Amino acid sequence: MTSNRVVIALGGNAMTGADGSATPEAQRDAIRQAAGHVAEVVAAGVQVVLTHGNGPQVGNLLVKNELAAHEVPPVPLDWNVAQTQATIGFTVADELDAALAARGLPQRTAALVTRTLVDGDDPHFAEPSKPVGRFLPRERAERFVSLGQTWEDRGEKGWRRVVASPEPLSVVDSAAIHALAAAGFVVVCAGGGGIPVVDDHVDGHALRGVEAVIDKDLTAAILARDVDAGTLVIATDVPNVMVGFGTPAQRPLGRVTVAELRELGAAGEFARGSMGPKVEAALRFVEAGGTRAVITSLDHIADAVRGDDVGTVVTIT
Amino acid sequence: MTSNRVVIALGGNAMTGADGSATPEAQRDAIRQAAGHVAEVVAAGVQVVLTHGNGPQVGNLLVKNELAAHEVPPVPLDWNVAQTQATIGFTVADELDAALAARGLPQRTAALVTRTLVDGDDPHFAEPSKPVGRFLPRERAERFVSLGQTWEDRGEKGWRRVVASPEPLSVVDSAAIHALAAAGFVVVCAGGGGIPVVDDHVDGHALRGVEAVIDKDLTAAILARDVDAGTLVIATDVPNVMVGFGTPAQRPLGRVTVAELRELGAAGEFARGSMGPKVEAALRFVEAGGTRAVITSLDHIADAVRGDDVGTVVTIT
Repeated sequence: MTSNRVVIALGGNAMTGADGSATPEAQRDAIRQAAGHVAEVVAAGVQVVLTHGNGPQVGNLLVKNELAAHEVPPVPLDWNVAQTQATIGFTVADELDAALAARGLPQRTAALVTRTLVDGDDPHFAEPSKPVGRFLPRERAERFVSLGQTWEDRGEKGWRRVVASPEPLSVVDSAAIHALAAAGFVVVCAGGGGIPVVDDHVDGHALRGVEAVIDKDLTAAILARDVDAGTLVIATDVPNVMVGFGTPAQRPLGRVTVAELRELGAAGEFARGSMGPKVEAALRFVEAGGTRAVITSLDHIADAVRGDDVGTVVTIT
Repeated sequence: MTSNRVVIALGGNAMTGADGSATPEAQRDAIRQAAGHVAEVVAAGVQVVLTHGNGPQVGNLLVKNELAAHEVPPVPLDWNVAQTQATIGFTVADELDAALAARGLPQRTAALVTRTLVDGDDPHFAEPSKPVGRFLPRERAERFVSLGQTWEDRGEKGWRRVVASPEPLSVVDSAAIHALAAAGFVVVCAGGGGIPVVDDHVDGHALRGVEAVIDKDLTAAILARDVDAGTLVIATDVPNVMVGFGTPAQRPLGRVTVAELRELGAAGEFARGSMGPKVEAALRFVEAGGTRAVITSLDHIADAVRGDDVGTVVTIT
């Protein structure tokens, strides 16, 4: 394990405006804020590998696919994921390079187009359940159903496309990520959970993109494992995971073992909201041999890398 | 110079259908064909850095921007270039990895999001002249003029957007490309001439994407220089550059010196068609210290790397 290597997973709040706006300007402004915090982590003397979400960005691309479908061929969902890796990737590179230079740090940023391997037989493909894009009236949705997409009737709000969210098995490009990190680059990779690909086993090695989206936190755990990181930091909009959320007994979770966190999860503590996948990702990374996983807010990530007294810190014992 | 390193610039015919079709299927089929030829170059024992065009792909994205502009924010042209780097990049990686594995070669492919530095004061910004996207009726074009875009009245065909095509100065991410190539990866980078960025000199280093497209062959020459390649191969759809094109004296050009080729260019031999920028790129690379530049067809690139008897071969003497 390269214990000096840290994988940081940036959430949507690091990529989009406070109101969820995903205009190019809003994305760049949010990324500029995040870049300052990431530069502070680099200043702490660790090798940083960055990954990020892409929900609102993919949503916008799906609308463009849909509204232009009569004039230009829509591209599959895996292509949309790739597109967001590049737009977010080079914007992060521009802003983070500036933040690093402003601090007199020699490191620079590299953004890698990244594929994540999934199992073509993953049961999620048989029962797509992850909603993507926007609601449409039935008659407009049916056009895409006829193209082979799965859409669900969500009642008053209309119909919405659902896609498979298969389990990430490995980061196909982890060797390239390792080479860049070892050469001193901050690597932006596996955005949006990575471009989902399956192995057709033709000639022993033939990858093919598939229409799916992979949970970006679960991929972050696989990424941290595959690049031998010692620490996984999942940046979100709260400083700590809460237990007893919304009850009088509500309290922030600090240091916690895998066993204790599994128990809390089994008790339904993280069933609701977006904390579930973050907790699961933290658990999987430590269970796979990672030293520690931290869930905290963007403005705490540098302190979280320096010590164990910030955020929710998951360790084996 | 890493004389064992070769930069190959793939033309549109390696990315799109014979009819210019840029559906995902047509792109993948064309890339599969090209990947076989590139794998043969790798088999020749050289380090390969790949770059490529993106014209039809950017054209499709501009149409999507336009038709969805009333519902989702259009993204700037530099974002569109980035998007094509990712979709073409991971498709090349999938197909080339398979072609390499099928030949028992250990190398694998890495696709890097790549920025190309241009001068904010480049005169081309004051007089945009590169047509992009499709023709629109005046009333529809005016909407985008009001957003700050430059469109020209092309008479019967309608209005068409024109953008700046500034000179590429350097490949910002060349150090990352070098690190990946040195680690044994075939690197796909600087697609579509690279994402055009200018340096605002804030804090000494603050890059910002700009609305422009850079000629992919001219960038290939800069890329080959910046990654210390010994040979630049520009793959096109003809085995040789022709002189006396369309005249009874028409003949294919074989080995030629920089001086001879400059003379032919000055005589207007390459004024028409798409050969001009390829010839200029070959000249610039050799003039900048490159050992040789070759312009030939995709099916000849492996032989062109092995010897000097294939294609149009440009050397200093």
